[in-house]
Amino acid sequence: MNQIVDIRPDAEAELNNLAMSRSAEPLMEAVKRHIAENVEPITEEFFRRGEGRADRWSWGPGQLELLQTAKDKAKASGLWNFFLPDSEIGRGLTNLDYAYIAVELGKSPLASESLNCSAPDTGNMEVLDRVGTPEQKERWLRPLLNGEIRSCYAMTEPGVASSDAKNIATRAELVGDEWVINGEKYYISGAGDPRCKIMICMVKTSPDAPAQFQQSQILVPMDTPGVNILGPMHVFGHDHAPRGHMHIKLDNVRVPKENILLGEGRGFEISQVRLGPGRIHHCMRSIGKAEKALDLMVKRATTRVAFGKPLIQLGKNLELVSRARIEIEAMRLMVLKAAKAMDVLGNREARVWVSMVKAMVPEKVCEIIDQAIQIHGATGISEWTPLAELYTDVRHLRFADGPDEVHHMVVGRAELANH
Amino acid sequence: MNQIVDIRPDAEAELNNLAMSRSAEPLMEAVKRHIAENVEPITEEFFRRGEGRADRWSWGPGQLELLQTAKDKAKASGLWNFFLPDSEIGRGLTNLDYAYIAVELGKSPLASESLNCSAPDTGNMEVLDRVGTPEQKERWLRPLLNGEIRSCYAMTEPGVASSDAKNIATRAELVGDEWVINGEKYYISGAGDPRCKIMICMVKTSPDAPAQFQQSQILVPMDTPGVNILGPMHVFGHDHAPRGHMHIKLDNVRVPKENILLGEGRGFEISQVRLGPGRIHHCMRSIGKAEKALDLMVKRATTRVAFGKPLIQLGKNLELVSRARIEIEAMRLMVLKAAKAMDVLGNREARVWVSMVKAMVPEKVCEIIDQAIQIHGATGISEWTPLAELYTDVRHLRFADGPDEVHHMVVGRAELANH
Amino acid sequence: MNQIVDIRPDAEAELNNLAMSRSAEPLMEAVKRHIAENVEPITEEFFRRGEGRADRWSWGPGQLELLQTAKDKAKASGLWNFFLPDSEIGRGLTNLDYAYIAVELGKSPLASESLNCSAPDTGNMEVLDRVGTPEQKERWLRPLLNGEIRSCYAMTEPGVASSDAKNIATRAELVGDEWVINGEKYYISGAGDPRCKIMICMVKTSPDAPAQFQQSQILVPMDTPGVNILGPMHVFGHDHAPRGHMHIKLDNVRVPKENILLGEGRGFEISQVRLGPGRIHHCMRSIGKAEKALDLMVKRATTRVAFGKPLIQLGKNLELVSRARIEIEAMRLMVLKAAKAMDVLGNREARVWVSMVKAMVPEKVCEIIDQAIQIHGATGISEWTPLAELYTDVRHLRFADGPDEVHHMVVGRAELANH
Amino acid sequence: MNQIVDIRPDAEAELNNLAMSRSAEPLMEAVKRHIAENVEPITEEFFRRGEGRADRWSWGPGQLELLQTAKDKAKASGLWNFFLPDSEIGRGLTNLDYAYIAVELGKSPLASESLNCSAPDTGNMEVLDRVGTPEQKERWLRPLLNGEIRSCYAMTEPGVASSDAKNIATRAELVGDEWVINGEKYYISGAGDPRCKIMICMVKTSPDAPAQFQQSQILVPMDTPGVNILGPMHVFGHDHAPRGHMHIKLDNVRVPKENILLGEGRGFEISQVRLGPGRIHHCMRSIGKAEKALDLMVKRATTRVAFGKPLIQLGKNLELVSRARIEIEAMRLMVLKAAKAMDVLGNREARVWVSMVKAMVPEKVCEIIDQAIQIHGATGISEWTPLAELYTDVRHLRFADGPDEVHHMVVGRAELANH
Repeated sequence: MNQIVDIRPDAEAELNNLAMSRSAEPLMEAVKRHIAENVEPITEEFFRRGEGRADRWSWGPGQLELLQTAKDKAKASGLWNFFLPDSEIGRGLTNLDYAYIAVELGKSPLASESLNCSAPDTGNMEVLDRVGTPEQKERWLRPLLNGEIRSCYAMTEPGVASSDAKNIATRAELVGDEWVINGEKYYISGAGDPRCKIMICMVKTSPDAPAQFQQSQILVPMDTPGVNILGPMHVFGHDHAPRGHMHIKLDNVRVPKENILLGEGRGFEISQVRLGPGRIHHCMRSIGKAEKALDLMVKRATTRVAFGKPLIQLGKNLELVSRARIEIEAMRLMVLKAAKAMDVLGNREARVWVSMVKAMVPEKVCEIIDQAIQIHGATGISEWTPLAELYTDVRHLRFADGPDEVHHMVVGRAELANH
Repeated sequence: MNQIVDIRPDAEAELNNLAMSRSAEPLMEAVKRHIAENVEPITEEFFRRGEGRADRWSWGPGQLELLQTAKDKAKASGLWNFFLPDSEIGRGLTNLDYAYIAVELGKSPLASESLNCSAPDTGNMEVLDRVGTPEQKERWLRPLLNGEIRSCYAMTEPGVASSDAKNIATRAELVGDEWVINGEKYYISGAGDPRCKIMICMVKTSPDAPAQFQQSQILVPMDTPGVNILGPMHVFGHDHAPRGHMHIKLDNVRVPKENILLGEGRGFEISQVRLGPGRIHHCMRSIGKAEKALDLMVKRATTRVAFGKPLIQLGKNLELVSRARIEIEAMRLMVLKAAKAMDVLGNREARVWVSMVKAMVPEKVCEIIDQAIQIHGATGISEWTPLAELYTDVRHLRFADGPDEVHHMVVGRAELANH
Repeated sequence: MNQIVDIRPDAEAELNNLAMSRSAEPLMEAVKRHIAENVEPITEEFFRRGEGRADRWSWGPGQLELLQTAKDKAKASGLWNFFLPDSEIGRGLTNLDYAYIAVELGKSPLASESLNCSAPDTGNMEVLDRVGTPEQKERWLRPLLNGEIRSCYAMTEPGVASSDAKNIATRAELVGDEWVINGEKYYISGAGDPRCKIMICMVKTSPDAPAQFQQSQILVPMDTPGVNILGPMHVFGHDHAPRGHMHIKLDNVRVPKENILLGEGRGFEISQVRLGPGRIHHCMRSIGKAEKALDLMVKRATTRVAFGKPLIQLGKNLELVSRARIEIEAMRLMVLKAAKAMDVLGNREARVWVSMVKAMVPEKVCEIIDQAIQIHGATGISEWTPLAELYTDVRHLRFADGPDEVHHMVVGRAELANH
Repeated sequence: MNQIVDIRPDAEAELNNLAMSRSAEPLMEAVKRHIAENVEPITEEFFRRGEGRADRWSWGPGQLELLQTAKDKAKASGLWNFFLPDSEIGRGLTNLDYAYIAVELGKSPLASESLNCSAPDTGNMEVLDRVGTPEQKERWLRPLLNGEIRSCYAMTEPGVASSDAKNIATRAELVGDEWVINGEKYYISGAGDPRCKIMICMVKTSPDAPAQFQQSQILVPMDTPGVNILGPMHVFGHDHAPRGHMHIKLDNVRVPKENILLGEGRGFEISQVRLGPGRIHHCMRSIGKAEKALDLMVKRATTRVAFGKPLIQLGKNLELVSRARIEIEAMRLMVLKAAKAMDVLGNREARVWVSMVKAMVPEKVCEIIDQAIQIHGATGISEWTPLAELYTDVRHLRFADGPDEVHHMVVGRAELANH
């Protein structure tokens, strides 16, 4: 069997064991039960409470309180913060075990947050846990782990091609004991949420260093003067208030020297910590979304009648169901394999597997959701099904954390190197 | 050459002459000039005036006045109502000549309305012109032709498969001299617009007649008691206020007996009048939208730099541009041919051509816009480009006026019949 | 995680362990060494000896002797007949372990036969082993296991749709102590080989029984009077002499009553034994073929220069390499999973997994080979690369053992049943 | 409307008139009648006479005589050599009129040759007519026009990427009054035919000139010493004897100085003459092949029964028929437009249209034929239908006369230039 990366011989068998660990099985059951008992019953009410409020950038009356009840129950049951592999925090789940669970989380819009496992907090907490100083951990990691505050991650910039991270132009200069930051970021998810208190910001600190050592990551409290939220960026016409994907101008923002993470010029090194699992988590949840779409597709096609027959008996519909199932199973195995590769080989060695699933999953899941939409007719793009929301969400993953094209480049080059 | 329909021999050469008529050329130039001089300059301001208003279901201050200036200029130049072939009204343009012009209209969001050529008014005006009584024309067609009011067309229902129009369940019963209508319609485009005064409503009047003679079309003034607008249907999370795609409950709505169009049980007969040109107009405009997307794709790909090169020099991007151009030219010729078929053969004989372009164009245009989005990265789904709006608009055409699948059924069956 | 079939809880973890067993690892190494040392060096010479012979339906001088040297070496090393899971015969390998090895076999045209593991003998031997009488085993299984004779399997008929096996029309009637068989079969692979001595023939014995009990399988020695080979069926213009895919007329063929397998009306029951592993073996080998095509694609693209650059740096070529690698890994995992499902759940319960890979793999492998062809230009369809042969071979799998469409039907229906 | 090339205003309307000229209509009818009456009846017999002959590189007994009867009838009716636009020779048909006829020719394997309109003779005759000297015309054009000899065109070389014609490496050096040619060519279609007497050979004469002026085209009689035919190149395992696609070594081949066409360094200039119409002719005939495939697909799907229904009523089959019809009509219009562009704008200005159809048509036609194959099951790749032959023929067009990728490059660059 060709391998995309060379591995030590004894790792190969381990790599192909994609079974969830026995110890994680009860956790999986507990998570499913939690979603069924504590999350699903409040979901509709949660969104209803958010309707029609005057200030779109606040939460509706009682909305967060409702969510808090689910969070409290999860925390009380120990279903909390289990996204960190090899860590004291949470459950120390392997990436593989987390992958199984994340598929479930993808099916329900509130599930991740109810377990304190939602993006971008998971990635930010992982970074703080791995490279934060004790002071940084105390100040920001602790409240994040407690689910008291939320966070954002500011990387993408409107002025440069996000596919090539070396282009990042937001400038941070050390002036006395402070970093002075100037630049513009956009599509900063969650930055509109009133609970968002801290931003991890990718900046250029060292323009004269070699290309891969020019960037750094700096902690920027959201209430720092000069952090100007210009407004929300829309996703297919939708602003996702009050969480939003914000457009932010950093205008002479000053933060203490100590707010840098890991050290000057080590921004890309941190990205390696963060982006591997983050990309995988998105793909895991996307599979849950594909399952959701397939489920709705089957329900609609078996109950809706046209020309005297249920839709499933018409034309290519049954084959579409089959193709969706086949692609979902193939994607699931690929995500499990990539997760296992991270567990066995480490994030660095597993990066080609991560790029494979990042290039594969969102594109195929979009297609499946699109077919589910088509079978629903106009209802498929309406607010009466989650399909339009699922579609736009997964569609945006095709360029978030590196566009498909860049991941194909990584995979293609690894293949050449292997010959 | 195989023909999808048998035609009289002397029509064949005529059918393949897809050139715009000489007489329409100056009109085409005038329309382009009008868009460039009167429409483009006000477009940004028009939408800006609509932002942040308290009542989403009203127009912003001065919004309609701005549009009216463009409408007045168009009317003064005789660029008005030219969508009706073989008619006293407007210019009597052939479907073919209109097709050329409609491509242009598709590139600009206000162009159609500035010329009083926007859906669903065009279809409604065509129906009134072809089958309306003198009274109906005076009461509704005149103000529509003058651009004083707007209209909507209520066909789709949430409870039944819209792919099979025989399912229409909204019931109209003759009680004394009035039709009493009960039912539910959704995705009624434009029904939220305060200027919308009249609805043409597809209803079931004759449940005991053969399937194709059960439906009728009835004029329902929007202010009739019982016409309850329940709220807007979203399109990918967007409500398109204040025009909207409304969800309407018809609750013991009473209109005079004379409000029926053409006669009881002739609903489908009217659809033939209406849907042929309507479907073609959508496809024509969609080609303009594809041109717009390709234009943006090329601009972005030639100016944005990643990995030291403009995007157009990376990977498959140049081939995507080529494929988009090829598909656009093929679609353009198909739309012109379908329009010409309507001119030469009549709507009925041309229906297979109409189904061919309806099944072909929206699907391919969606793909082209999607690729333009991908080349733009996050900006592609933002409010900074029209791409997301173009995408959702064309995506919804894949089930409006019959889903792709039904049009493929029409084409497939015609092919079998030809053997 | 949704499962396409319900399984006993303790099987789930086992199902997802896709690692080769430790005990099979040395066998895998031995097979690879055998191919490299004993098979690859004789391959070119083997085919050269077959060229230009007068009688196309014989083997060239010394051709079989050359192959025999490789067979002798394999048998001496115990690399022989290891395709049968849970069997006294050969190595008793699991389907999973065999899957890993079969991928290797797919890369080299003589590898399978050198190990006595080539189709359709493997399937026929499995059937004889599972359901044969002692006499049938002694007469036919023993020489097959020894690699002394070869066999064929006669199912497909020109006159009926092979997608629906219930259509099989070849008639066998019991007259006295003999079955008298009349009918027509085609694409009977290997039937032209002078070494082919026995045919397993699917026939209709019981036309009045319920549909699934009408067919039987009967052993028909090739030299029985009335077995008339009409000629070879071509595969894309190629007759594959001297093995061939023969067109056979069965004209009052008489065989003893005892030649029936398992019993009257049990033809489909035997197919279940045979077709599961057989379909999987084809898919496994197809993955090896895809690896071969990708390998050639990369070699060509990195060494061939156009417009001043190696092809790999032009256009979409690198992305094609990436997509091929991703699809290959996804297919590999799916095949391993299906093989494991057969091991854990049994052939019957695993049938949906088998249909999933049968519907997925040949279609995608065809695409990969086709892209490898395109990168080679005319050389890609010539006799200078194995690509054209690989393509036609895998293309024909898209209807052999049930067309893609039927397997999608199986998968789609299982999905519905799961809801 | 965007145009891929700028054109003089008065040409636009002309460009879009895709109707066959009135004067060509009777010719079209005569060609159809000729095929039905003189070609179809002899086709099966023609191929039967070629079977089983001892020397594969000769014609079977009476084979050519049979074909000659059809040729004689065509010539007698004036249906001869009508491929040359604006010429004294033949009918002087426009490219557009010829396009309509060529679609018909593509449906029948002997039709083109029966009218002396088959490749590569058509291209070679066009070159000789446009740029040949009176002596060259007398010696080679006259017998070609009479259908007495055949010819070949030697461009592709095994050692270099054919996608970039500047790579051509076969060397011709002027030694005294003779060109001395050394090099290797392959896939030289028709060079195996005993009737093939003359080769137009693309060679490098001027290695020190700028890239586009290094090549020349030289007339090389097939019986010149040093023209060594090494053997046939296969197409998917098939050698197409006795016409063949030959592999030729040119070993110190000497021809008179006067055999050069047009002059030294003008090889690419001649290609412009030749390749435009040649590419278009292939695409036209390919549309005829797609029609043939669709026709067979419909026939099979309406007559073959599985699971109790004709195949056309199962799954996606009817939609495949619809999609094939739509794509065929779109391709037909594109080919007609490209042909008209050559008529109106000249070959040079029309080259982007030619590249559009060359990149579009063979790829899509391959898909249609492939679907027709799938519906036929094994019969689809057998010698019982023409589908496998049609497939391999059209598949090879995807790199003949420039691979798809190069044509997309031409179209993509023209699009960029247009912005």
